[in-house]
Amino acid sequence: MTASPQQMANAIRALAMDAVEAANSGHPGMPMGMADVATTLFTTYLKFDPQAPKWHDRDRFVLSAGHGSMLIYALLYLTGYEAPSIDDIRNFRQLGSRCAGHPENFELAGVECTTGPLGQGLAMAVGMAIAERHLNANFGNDLVDHRTWVIAGDGCLMEGINHEAVGLAGHLGLGRMIVLWDDNRITIDGAVSLSSSEDIPARYRASGWHVEACDGHDPAEIARAIDAALADPRPSLVACRTIIAKGAPNKQGTSATHGAALGAAEVAAARTELGWTAEPFVVPEPILEAWRATGKRGAQARTAWEARLAAAALGGELKRRMAGDATPDGWLRPYLDNLIAAPQNIATRKASELALGAINDAIPETLGGSADLTGSNNTKTSATAPLSKNDYSGRYIYYGIREFGMAAAMNGMALHGGIIPYGGTFLVFADYCRNAIRMSALQRVRTVYVMTHDSIGLGEDGPTHQPVEHLMSLRVVPNLDVYRPCDTIETAECWALALHKTDGPSLLALSRQNLPQLRTDISQNWSARGAYRLRAAKAARRVVLIATGSEVEIAISVADALEEKGIGADVVSMPSWERFDAQTETYRREVLPHGTLMVSIEAGSTMGWERYVHGGLRFGVDGFGASAPIADLYNHFGLTAVAITPQIISELQGN
Amino acid sequence: MTASPQQMANAIRALAMDAVEAANSGHPGMPMGMADVATTLFTTYLKFDPQAPKWHDRDRFVLSAGHGSMLIYALLYLTGYEAPSIDDIRNFRQLGSRCAGHPENFELAGVECTTGPLGQGLAMAVGMAIAERHLNANFGNDLVDHRTWVIAGDGCLMEGINHEAVGLAGHLGLGRMIVLWDDNRITIDGAVSLSSSEDIPARYRASGWHVEACDGHDPAEIARAIDAALADPRPSLVACRTIIAKGAPNKQGTSATHGAALGAAEVAAARTELGWTAEPFVVPEPILEAWRATGKRGAQARTAWEARLAAAALGGELKRRMAGDATPDGWLRPYLDNLIAAPQNIATRKASELALGAINDAIPETLGGSADLTGSNNTKTSATAPLSKNDYSGRYIYYGIREFGMAAAMNGMALHGGIIPYGGTFLVFADYCRNAIRMSALQRVRTVYVMTHDSIGLGEDGPTHQPVEHLMSLRVVPNLDVYRPCDTIETAECWALALHKTDGPSLLALSRQNLPQLRTDISQNWSARGAYRLRAAKAARRVVLIATGSEVEIAISVADALEEKGIGADVVSMPSWERFDAQTETYRREVLPHGTLMVSIEAGSTMGWERYVHGGLRFGVDGFGASAPIADLYNHFGLTAVAITPQIISELQGN
Repeated sequence: MTASPQQMANAIRALAMDAVEAANSGHPGMPMGMADVATTLFTTYLKFDPQAPKWHDRDRFVLSAGHGSMLIYALLYLTGYEAPSIDDIRNFRQLGSRCAGHPENFELAGVECTTGPLGQGLAMAVGMAIAERHLNANFGNDLVDHRTWVIAGDGCLMEGINHEAVGLAGHLGLGRMIVLWDDNRITIDGAVSLSSSEDIPARYRASGWHVEACDGHDPAEIARAIDAALADPRPSLVACRTIIAKGAPNKQGTSATHGAALGAAEVAAARTELGWTAEPFVVPEPILEAWRATGKRGAQARTAWEARLAAAALGGELKRRMAGDATPDGWLRPYLDNLIAAPQNIATRKASELALGAINDAIPETLGGSADLTGSNNTKTSATAPLSKNDYSGRYIYYGIREFGMAAAMNGMALHGGIIPYGGTFLVFADYCRNAIRMSALQRVRTVYVMTHDSIGLGEDGPTHQPVEHLMSLRVVPNLDVYRPCDTIETAECWALALHKTDGPSLLALSRQNLPQLRTDISQNWSARGAYRLRAAKAARRVVLIATGSEVEIAISVADALEEKGIGADVVSMPSWERFDAQTETYRREVLPHGTLMVSIEAGSTMGWERYVHGGLRFGVDGFGASAPIADLYNHFGLTAVAITPQIISELQGN
Repeated sequence: MTASPQQMANAIRALAMDAVEAANSGHPGMPMGMADVATTLFTTYLKFDPQAPKWHDRDRFVLSAGHGSMLIYALLYLTGYEAPSIDDIRNFRQLGSRCAGHPENFELAGVECTTGPLGQGLAMAVGMAIAERHLNANFGNDLVDHRTWVIAGDGCLMEGINHEAVGLAGHLGLGRMIVLWDDNRITIDGAVSLSSSEDIPARYRASGWHVEACDGHDPAEIARAIDAALADPRPSLVACRTIIAKGAPNKQGTSATHGAALGAAEVAAARTELGWTAEPFVVPEPILEAWRATGKRGAQARTAWEARLAAAALGGELKRRMAGDATPDGWLRPYLDNLIAAPQNIATRKASELALGAINDAIPETLGGSADLTGSNNTKTSATAPLSKNDYSGRYIYYGIREFGMAAAMNGMALHGGIIPYGGTFLVFADYCRNAIRMSALQRVRTVYVMTHDSIGLGEDGPTHQPVEHLMSLRVVPNLDVYRPCDTIETAECWALALHKTDGPSLLALSRQNLPQLRTDISQNWSARGAYRLRAAKAARRVVLIATGSEVEIAISVADALEEKGIGADVVSMPSWERFDAQTETYRREVLPHGTLMVSIEAGSTMGWERYVHGGLRFGVDGFGASAPIADLYNHFGLTAVAITPQIISELQGN
């Protein structure tokens, strides 16, 4: 006795209804609407093995429409993953359940990425598909040969990031990526026609995609469309015409089913409609057996792959890369020794390029890029040839003017594994990709954001291009390490720390303008402390000047001016708040001792600096910037020793 | 003796070269490449009058590719605007010059919006085109009948926001919008083909646009294409095939001309190539005269319009709306009286809907919308019928899943004048439109962001949908007023303040969950003070509890628990940091007196609260949220009176 595809799909529908009903919260419409498509995908096409959920060569499946999380929870349970259990599903959306409101990559193997913020799942999948081709180019078809599948809804397709993701995928010819579009013509507000008149297939074709369409409730039709997608060398969009909440006889096809429980009466009616007589959370044995058999489809391919991996000359290297451990620091010491021998007074963006030169030579898994600011972000080095449709082995991506698409693709590469992605833009345009940076942090992936032109020091381009609030607004993002190094030495140290942070992103804020090499002590990675005394007071210490990045040089000038008046002033460089806050109380007190006037100098928002200066002085920029040459701007905003020193003296006299 | 179109265009080229050369910084390529197109537009099509630059019925011209700012500066000077003067142009990119690196709407009449962050100029133009049709529907063809023109480059078209803007414009059938695309096939990194393979005309057609193409250096061709665009009822994209830096014989057509001065030798060669013999910054008299004559084309139409306005029954109302003064508060008092008479224990998002009911009835220029969360953001009221292609008089826009496009369109409407736009999404998705919020602030326009589900109180949807760092990250944006009201009364007060802020945006952070109506004193708008003592200590005051929004209720419970132990505790509600910081020192000290333990309670980042609590206690959420019912989350994160009270007592004992 076997189960029909229809019955197997109905198991998804039943679990989705039951879980949402129990939680009295959630999104039943999408799982019920896409149950048939998902059943076809998982029973016939997807390469996976629940017994080895992290199998490197598995297909990646991304539920971009993450609100329909019960779809993937049902699939993982039915195909026999260790988790979620049926109890996890019973506890859908409850505190501590692995079945969270939206799928979280850190909760469940089989959830390849956290989805929820619309558009980003698909855009991360582009990164996964890039990673697959890149590793394929390096390790060959025997070891790397998988596909990336996406289920996306109208929301994912309407978001701006979709344009960037689709453009990138089309340009790079990512033919192993297939997007199954839940074409249900419903959004939260009502019919899609309320807000959009777009011919979506035509748009995808315009970006170099292949497009198929099918009845999303007819398994044969779905299979025909997927077969056509597989046969086409381009990335494919499969428009699956579906009915949202298919099976709920009175509510299906309406926005009412998008984000709310169906209610007991409608669930009962749906059970009748579907011929589903089992108790809630119970899947009849034959149907569960059929699903579990599906979950065993991939085992043979996986063991064969493991044998190939074990035999392959490059197998060890692939394993090393996929393990994603912290990178070795062998490059750092000789690089720093060279800097000490021949100090470089250069912009920290240039210092980053020099450090990357050493890093990219030593660490083959870095893969860089820039959102069309390569020469400004200094992200390209001699080791990084372009990655293109014709040569995926390259280690540099010309992302185009696509900051958000770049950041999401970086997340996808990091999630795929085997790659440490870094990408550049101006710091002010962190705004454009901010939620993807947040998603790096939430998903605990190692991405490195190279954000240059990090203050009014950008100069003539003016306030639209000058970050002011950005440093502070990024420091509040949980699990994001923000670094603002002051010279070549700190820049290299911060790069080393970023490469060591395997469970989260780092962001380097780098200057446009040249800066002196200030550090002489390379006995330890002082940046790892977050802040440290760069120069001790000569006279009796009455002031501690805390500065970051390009303003450390100014702090030193201020200290000089104070010392001339007999006022002792420490200069503390603070490249990272997060790291400093993680130090012991003893260390922090030693660097920022009580009983002295604390003064912060940073060319950005002063809000937040109360944390370290308490009632002291905060120098910065709290309004928008202006268009002028850099020296004029620092004068105009009072960020000079001439402007700052007398204010400190006055404060000391008042005390 | 008259000047040829070629000579007139060369005047733009010469001024662009000269200004960039003098500044030794800037973008000569775009102005030189688009000089012919701009000349055709300004001499033949654009409806404008430099003598009355704020003429309400002028065409709007948006230089979306704002880095090519010398194009618009040259055009304004040549056509006879009062500013910029030739000296302003000489001082291009210098401190205090009105000719900033990127065009700033607050520097020059004729610059309709600040452009620079790519993609947003075009997206703001969509808002301007909506505003035009909406006012046309209200005031008729005699008073409102103009077009919106955009010059955009590949960067504007590649950004994600372009998809949202184009989708919205196509859906709404904004046929009076014409985008002149500088199709020069060059980006900063090199050829467009490095990063994109898109068929742009096909994409625009897929979104309901009409597309023309022309040789962007042939005036007759340009005119033919624009005529076709004018004749078509759809919004139009005109692909103007150009050569970047056209006229610079050795560098034209290369990315080298995008963002750097040409250099003296190439400028000299270009002068030879163009037959341009005048001194730098000098435009030969016949050419200047021809341009100035162009600048007089619109005067007659403008005076005729003024006569119609004076005679029209609705003329006064149009003038009132376009003046954009602070709205009257007549709606507020009766609305508050009703609340006092019948207190409402509802979510502040619902309180916002109730307030909007009164506001939208009283103030006809509000125009609302939501990015597909209408029922969750509570942004629609009975007065706001949908604005659609078939009825532009509606006051509600179903923006679709387009947060960034919505926010930019709101900016465009506010810049156009005559409309006070507000729009909703979840607070966490402020990330998606963050730079447009910044652009509201930089451009000093009145937009109101209705951001609901403002904390972990969002509940089951989990960490992707729960804002944590967002409140703080928005408070650091200059000139943005962030409000987090605690009940129905404060919500109405904050709305009144937002409508009064004519020179900048406001953002309302509103709860999903129900909250008690706490305020009883409506003798003044206490929210205008930013923070105020909501409840005074009964026992001797030892603690001041500072809370915002949904946590004010918790602060009151904490105060109750402390008072039971004989510990006096004030409760301060602080709906707005910006407003509190603007109060007198005396007021601030009165609300937050020295010598008491300060405690902040806000369900978000605690970083930054040091500003008010100094060494006191900060309760909040510094990591990511979780998926669970709201009560479980507040327990889990320790934001309850039971969890907080003993920590305060312990701190008092330690002191």
